Amino acid sequence: MTPLKTVTFGELLLRLSPPGYERILQSPLLHAYFGGAEANVAVGLAQLGLHSTFVTRLPANAVGDAGLRVLRAENVDVGGVERGGQRVGVYFAEPGIAQRMASVIYDRAHSALSELGPETFDWTRLLRGAAWFHSSGITPALGPGAAACTRSALVAARHAGATVSIDLNYRRKLWSEQEAQRVMRPLMRDVNWIIGNEEHLKITLGVSCAGPTGRPDLDSYRAAGERVVSEYGVEGVAITVRGSHSATENRWTALLYHGPSKTLHEGHRYVVRLVERIGGGDAFAAGLIFALLDRRPLPAALRFALCASVLKHTIPGDFNHVSLAEIEQLSAGDESGRIQR
Amino acid sequence: MTPLKTVTFGELLLRLSPPGYERILQSPLLHAYFGGAEANVAVGLAQLGLHSTFVTRLPANAVGDAGLRVLRAENVDVGGVERGGQRVGVYFAEPGIAQRMASVIYDRAHSALSELGPETFDWTRLLRGAAWFHSSGITPALGPGAAACTRSALVAARHAGATVSIDLNYRRKLWSEQEAQRVMRPLMRDVNWIIGNEEHLKITLGVSCAGPTGRPDLDSYRAAGERVVSEYGVEGVAITVRGSHSATENRWTALLYHGPSKTLHEGHRYVVRLVERIGGGDAFAAGLIFALLDRRPLPAALRFALCASVLKHTIPGDFNHVSLAEIEQLSAGDESGRIQR
Amino acid sequence: MTPLKTVTFGELLLRLSPPGYERILQSPLLHAYFGGAEANVAVGLAQLGLHSTFVTRLPANAVGDAGLRVLRAENVDVGGVERGGQRVGVYFAEPGIAQRMASVIYDRAHSALSELGPETFDWTRLLRGAAWFHSSGITPALGPGAAACTRSALVAARHAGATVSIDLNYRRKLWSEQEAQRVMRPLMRDVNWIIGNEEHLKITLGVSCAGPTGRPDLDSYRAAGERVVSEYGVEGVAITVRGSHSATENRWTALLYHGPSKTLHEGHRYVVRLVERIGGGDAFAAGLIFALLDRRPLPAALRFALCASVLKHTIPGDFNHVSLAEIEQLSAGDESGRIQR
Amino acid sequence: MTPLKTVTFGELLLRLSPPGYERILQSPLLHAYFGGAEANVAVGLAQLGLHSTFVTRLPANAVGDAGLRVLRAENVDVGGVERGGQRVGVYFAEPGIAQRMASVIYDRAHSALSELGPETFDWTRLLRGAAWFHSSGITPALGPGAAACTRSALVAARHAGATVSIDLNYRRKLWSEQEAQRVMRPLMRDVNWIIGNEEHLKITLGVSCAGPTGRPDLDSYRAAGERVVSEYGVEGVAITVRGSHSATENRWTALLYHGPSKTLHEGHRYVVRLVERIGGGDAFAAGLIFALLDRRPLPAALRFALCASVLKHTIPGDFNHVSLAEIEQLSAGDESGRIQR
Amino acid sequence: MTPLKTVTFGELLLRLSPPGYERILQSPLLHAYFGGAEANVAVGLAQLGLHSTFVTRLPANAVGDAGLRVLRAENVDVGGVERGGQRVGVYFAEPGIAQRMASVIYDRAHSALSELGPETFDWTRLLRGAAWFHSSGITPALGPGAAACTRSALVAARHAGATVSIDLNYRRKLWSEQEAQRVMRPLMRDVNWIIGNEEHLKITLGVSCAGPTGRPDLDSYRAAGERVVSEYGVEGVAITVRGSHSATENRWTALLYHGPSKTLHEGHRYVVRLVERIGGGDAFAAGLIFALLDRRPLPAALRFALCASVLKHTIPGDFNHVSLAEIEQLSAGDESGRIQR
Amino acid sequence: MTPLKTVTFGELLLRLSPPGYERILQSPLLHAYFGGAEANVAVGLAQLGLHSTFVTRLPANAVGDAGLRVLRAENVDVGGVERGGQRVGVYFAEPGIAQRMASVIYDRAHSALSELGPETFDWTRLLRGAAWFHSSGITPALGPGAAACTRSALVAARHAGATVSIDLNYRRKLWSEQEAQRVMRPLMRDVNWIIGNEEHLKITLGVSCAGPTGRPDLDSYRAAGERVVSEYGVEGVAITVRGSHSATENRWTALLYHGPSKTLHEGHRYVVRLVERIGGGDAFAAGLIFALLDRRPLPAALRFALCASVLKHTIPGDFNHVSLAEIEQLSAGDESGRIQR
Repeated sequence: MTPLKTVTFGELLLRLSPPGYERILQSPLLHAYFGGAEANVAVGLAQLGLHSTFVTRLPANAVGDAGLRVLRAENVDVGGVERGGQRVGVYFAEPGIAQRMASVIYDRAHSALSELGPETFDWTRLLRGAAWFHSSGITPALGPGAAACTRSALVAARHAGATVSIDLNYRRKLWSEQEAQRVMRPLMRDVNWIIGNEEHLKITLGVSCAGPTGRPDLDSYRAAGERVVSEYGVEGVAITVRGSHSATENRWTALLYHGPSKTLHEGHRYVVRLVERIGGGDAFAAGLIFALLDRRPLPAALRFALCASVLKHTIPGDFNHVSLAEIEQLSAGDESGRIQR
Repeated sequence: MTPLKTVTFGELLLRLSPPGYERILQSPLLHAYFGGAEANVAVGLAQLGLHSTFVTRLPANAVGDAGLRVLRAENVDVGGVERGGQRVGVYFAEPGIAQRMASVIYDRAHSALSELGPETFDWTRLLRGAAWFHSSGITPALGPGAAACTRSALVAARHAGATVSIDLNYRRKLWSEQEAQRVMRPLMRDVNWIIGNEEHLKITLGVSCAGPTGRPDLDSYRAAGERVVSEYGVEGVAITVRGSHSATENRWTALLYHGPSKTLHEGHRYVVRLVERIGGGDAFAAGLIFALLDRRPLPAALRFALCASVLKHTIPGDFNHVSLAEIEQLSAGDESGRIQR
Repeated sequence: MTPLKTVTFGELLLRLSPPGYERILQSPLLHAYFGGAEANVAVGLAQLGLHSTFVTRLPANAVGDAGLRVLRAENVDVGGVERGGQRVGVYFAEPGIAQRMASVIYDRAHSALSELGPETFDWTRLLRGAAWFHSSGITPALGPGAAACTRSALVAARHAGATVSIDLNYRRKLWSEQEAQRVMRPLMRDVNWIIGNEEHLKITLGVSCAGPTGRPDLDSYRAAGERVVSEYGVEGVAITVRGSHSATENRWTALLYHGPSKTLHEGHRYVVRLVERIGGGDAFAAGLIFALLDRRPLPAALRFALCASVLKHTIPGDFNHVSLAEIEQLSAGDESGRIQR
Repeated sequence: MTPLKTVTFGELLLRLSPPGYERILQSPLLHAYFGGAEANVAVGLAQLGLHSTFVTRLPANAVGDAGLRVLRAENVDVGGVERGGQRVGVYFAEPGIAQRMASVIYDRAHSALSELGPETFDWTRLLRGAAWFHSSGITPALGPGAAACTRSALVAARHAGATVSIDLNYRRKLWSEQEAQRVMRPLMRDVNWIIGNEEHLKITLGVSCAGPTGRPDLDSYRAAGERVVSEYGVEGVAITVRGSHSATENRWTALLYHGPSKTLHEGHRYVVRLVERIGGGDAFAAGLIFALLDRRPLPAALRFALCASVLKHTIPGDFNHVSLAEIEQLSAGDESGRIQR
Repeated sequence: MTPLKTVTFGELLLRLSPPGYERILQSPLLHAYFGGAEANVAVGLAQLGLHSTFVTRLPANAVGDAGLRVLRAENVDVGGVERGGQRVGVYFAEPGIAQRMASVIYDRAHSALSELGPETFDWTRLLRGAAWFHSSGITPALGPGAAACTRSALVAARHAGATVSIDLNYRRKLWSEQEAQRVMRPLMRDVNWIIGNEEHLKITLGVSCAGPTGRPDLDSYRAAGERVVSEYGVEGVAITVRGSHSATENRWTALLYHGPSKTLHEGHRYVVRLVERIGGGDAFAAGLIFALLDRRPLPAALRFALCASVLKHTIPGDFNHVSLAEIEQLSAGDESGRIQR
Repeated sequence: MTPLKTVTFGELLLRLSPPGYERILQSPLLHAYFGGAEANVAVGLAQLGLHSTFVTRLPANAVGDAGLRVLRAENVDVGGVERGGQRVGVYFAEPGIAQRMASVIYDRAHSALSELGPETFDWTRLLRGAAWFHSSGITPALGPGAAACTRSALVAARHAGATVSIDLNYRRKLWSEQEAQRVMRPLMRDVNWIIGNEEHLKITLGVSCAGPTGRPDLDSYRAAGERVVSEYGVEGVAITVRGSHSATENRWTALLYHGPSKTLHEGHRYVVRLVERIGGGDAFAAGLIFALLDRRPLPAALRFALCASVLKHTIPGDFNHVSLAEIEQLSAGDESGRIQR
């Protein structure tokens, strides 16, 4: 049986991280990973067995080649990657530990994708036969060309009959709250599912999750879900919730509000130990898309997405190197981490 | 004073593990260790100052040579190692973390030891003067030759006047429960001490530790101990008990039932943080053998064995690189892990 | 324009090598590569822009997954890989240096491919549209199933209209000279191009390159080429010639005899410094196949194949990570290794 | 504005540590750091923007050069370093984990500083313009020359008008309690601030922090502070308090007693996860010196020093690679370790 | 005695290189170095004992901090470094070997220095007391601000009485030959010593070294030297000459033409084995500047500069980590590389 | 058959080397090896199958333990190692390359062996049944205790009927030429075979190898051999001859003068590429001892010793990790370094 086709659009960055718990360039060794919110989702979808096409732009040099290589390794279809531009965006990521917070230095300006022309991609061709299209708030923040391409992609996705999801992913270092709102809100018209945390829902869509005490509760999450659905006409919204005990240990859960059935589904609350903070939300998105495409009931879909994400927190690098079976096993309730032999 | 002589018999495997918390072959670097249940016990005994002879079969190539080298480094007497066969068994071991469980891929079929002839070893010579013989349920599971050699070793050990211990170590990937029972039960005739966890006691010997609620309690452990002693005619049985909070943190203790005195000794309950899950049980076995040979009272012996094992959980690799003094210090009650300077 | 399709069939092995100039397991770190004669050719063809399909059998575990991952990374089509069997074959490879020769320990018996059933692959489907099929003398040496599959593949390739090449690649550790002759000679019926060194031509096909003095000369090479063409009915034969000054520096060239035109083409004689000895011949084969498919004149094809191979000697690992442009540049005569900036 | 000048005096050691959680020389790789109680303070002060001069003696060889290089890298003024002597002191440090305690092997005898002549340094010149001088109980323990130089430095510091602090840092492997008392007590005459833990206050100064129950409480700490101030005539004393749950997790706080105001300030109690145990106290000292020089109120100074120290526990190596901003942020109450992007 | 002060101006780049002879990102590990033509000269001068000030612009983030750290480690005065801009320029450098040429991918556009304002530096202050000023053709190629700053620096250097040298260092990836000539030629007015290879002399200054046969000979080098001196009014010119046998082995020498004495000095011809190709010319420049400041006779100065450079070819990274004594020893004629013990 | 017993006496040092071609502590990683002239010989003898006992003194700490571990791994009998003293001697070794010479920094003063008492070892027991005793000029240079122990060992060896060899190994950093002569010459009384290079023969024994032209020739070597034999009453002398093209490539040969037969045997002249310079002479000594014990004719013994040594130059670390078969193969004339598969 041919797997369903998904398309994601976004930037692939070269990430450089120090070994162990060292600080950036404390010693002269860097671990190189590739990643990026949408690329991470694309890899997650490919790992789960979908035909996952990732659309981006990479320069025609050895660094761009290396980026393609890691995507292909994970079974991502890179047939729609445009080669061009001057550079692969870079970011330096230092994991946090205990009271020392993780830190990221972005060096992504002038990347190949950010200097994209508005008509770069033939979206009609790229989205032919696609069941799902996913992007995030980072892509339109990269520049006007990337924003225009996102708009074209959303329209084409609708015409192709694909379900569309957007992870809000507001990045303060890329644009202001005002710019984000101006560009992002109109995009929602073509979106079916919104994914975001409380802060990004507030900043980008102007919807607060806060309850009467100022902190969110079940009722206030439900109200926020309803507002998002009614104001932006989407089918549903997934709200991820992270609580930081420390840089090493987080609370992690999510809620799913479904417009047509007016139901709010609450996820199990996990405590995650962070081998890697980056890519946790993207693993959630990939898990949710997979489970919705697989027509699982919403509570099961939410649980699956959370389990994909929980496991991602234990994997170094941006990509979620876990199998469907591993997610299913955790989803079935085994948190013991026991060895099998 | 000449140290007491111990003999262990089993397989030495080459273990390949990824660096840090990476998944197997996520990056192209592997840490190589050698290990194996009985080899780990042999090393543990040598570290504690006994004359520890390890009997196995290794091919006459550079990988087999490297296996000998690590054993000799740890002061294990390899004079009884037979060189022959085609390959060193390999296993890939990926440590777990938090909700992600450890995973092991065995590639041990057709190893030198598994293709052993039944009359390979001159046990009379090898066991001359031995005070203790130890093996585990893994060895006879490797094949008919290994099983036959185990049987011969047990008979020879009895004739040599050595105390005999067997760690049940049931391995589902090597044989069925039925096969294990058929082969293992008759072996018990020549055994003095059995070591095993609840699951292996049930599978191999048909003795359940479960109490009236389905979970074990002190009374049910005692009853299980009594049954093992009476049915199999052994002197005693040590039952190790592991509880998995997560792949990173386990509860770990053991109980010791002594037949002649009809007493059950309960170990202190430790919480262990797992740098390394593999070899924990083998460190317990080595500690117990040492303490019994050292004629320590049973509660002290149990405590010593548990402390050896607790420390092993913090040591990368299969072998227990800790000194007698370090175990004694923990055994004396210092769990603070304070620096000495 | 759609690239031409090539199909190669053979085994993918996990190769483990020590760092730097260390001996195998001198220190407990291993670099992991995947490779194998035919896989190396498949990667070489993919790097040069062809649609390169590699057919093999890999077990359904994380090691087999990792093998697929490295092939996909290099743009090899793994759609025809059968998942099954017990293990990925392993080999330990230690590079030589100066007077110390390289050494290889094979641990490939019982690999997934060697335990292949005779009807595993649907060659008609796999070879549909293929312009070239390549395999080597290693594959039939793995066992009767692999030999039967090779025979079926050759017949199917002929039916599909693909050109067929075989690298003789005699491996003494896999079979005897008699067995090799018995199995390999009949295969030549469906082969268009034979690739081999003097020793393998002699052992496998019974054709000596020696001249009157006992050493080969141009006339004797020509005579050998003629004999191969007339006895085995192939279109041509490429004879690679390696001379070892030391483990670090080799002389390296090749000759190409073309049957229809009765011409012998002599390659440029290179001195290569060996970062990596393994994969040099496979890079030659890939270069030759590419150049012949590209309809280059035979002297140019020979030069291209040699340059691909010369560059491979500088690349760690089994695969030839060089671009078409880099080969063309060397082929155009620039051996200076100058930096470009 | 010219930064204030501080001078510290002590030994710089080469520290060798195994990778990850390995034991010393378990594998043949060592991470090299430089450190030493006073050098760590000097680096901490330089990181915070002060003009930090470190005075020591290093042999004129490549190891001594490397020591200078790391100090200069951290912006420490090494203009007062004397080149001479035979060797850089070495120590092997193995981090602990869980129940396995950290261990240190000192190989520092006969170091360049320990074989110092009594008149090596021109303290008048070195301390000209200095606002603060700091050393520790380790330096005089190294030998009579080092003790004499410490005495000269303290006198010169007083003449220069610099505030003087001493970290008691008793090291049992360097001298006896009697020797420590004999040498250290007279030094206090020229000291303004004493830093030490309970054990070192007792051993070196004969002042116990124990309360009526044998364990310290607020009253007994206050009493101890009063006694130190009255007996030794210092301005104040900072008492650091470490509680070891395990080698991986410690409780960590400090108290500050100020003589003139007769007040005892209690620090926040932190739980620290130990990436690195070494250098935690030195980071506290540097933080305290900085905050006092910055004329912060005592409670704020104590909080700043503790936060500097808490962050140090997460940094591999002896030096505290954290910025003023990072300490201020933790000091302002953010313990969440959240990522910023 | 106070060492003489030198000032260099240029860019500091973060260089990322793969381990061993791997290709860029063949495996996910990168060695990080900092370097840049002028920074390399600055480090070379500091190593030789001069007071070496390096002027550049680095962003105020952890990557810029790390750049400062490596400069300070090498005793370079970074007091004149401006903190600002968005990014540290990056380059990926892959060493060549044998027939495979080294390759460099620049990702330096939009670096902090390239986006420099024309009045960024207070050259009068920075050059006060300087005996020498050095820059290269790379700096003005970075952009109009950097070019303007170079011009200001040259004028200020003349006013300060400093000797001025420029390494032509033409970089095709930064500007065209026409632009280079337009900007560089007028700069020569304030220059005393020009350093360049034949190609750069031709491209930048329009002076060919070719003799009647098309290849340079002693007479044609002399003629070129005369032309440079007479056309550009400089005191002398050093012409470096590299011949590439292969990427691993080069011929390496230089000639020095001195205007006032009208003499051409020919350097010894070295064969260098390239551990590192990058920084060889900069080591020559530093050696020459040092020797000229040290008032050595021109032949001795040329020999010293060549020896500094020959040793640099054996040092990984951009900086020349060799001591004055090591250069003097090679300069005195010992090429044996014998061990001293 | 029981292997012959050999005893060697000397120091085991911890050697620290930078990775690749880096300079000492250029990056913060060190490779740790153990070695020492006599220990290297002991390992070489064990590798060749002799019962090799190494006598030394090592402190009772984890560094001393690690030293024992590497010796035992190589099958050296460490039963005669005395535990005591304060430290393991350390040396930092940086390999040379091309024109950059190797460099060594010794930090071996005050080592356990150097602070040896004169009656530490029970030589009668240690040498019981020994066929050969070997030491070198380094051991008596360590201090009076070590010199006294060497003297006792030589006497005991004579009484035990062991053949005795001494490698002159003059170390300028340990003692003066006068001291060396005063101590070493009387030792020769109990020596059968002297090993040394021309320089050490001159310095220690006052015997020059120079011919009429000032350079040695066959006649002058013969004359030197005769003088050594007649003046010191030994059976023979082996003179090693190293010529340094560069730090990477050496000429390497040896001559053997045999007193009773008055014959001089000239070795084959090898060109060696130096992966490792250290241990080459020790590998020669071990090869010679083995071959003489094996009663090979002198020319064959010389050839064997040279081949052992030639191979050692390709092995990282002090120990000669090569097999008897590998030496025999090179000795039989195969210098091609070809791969075997």
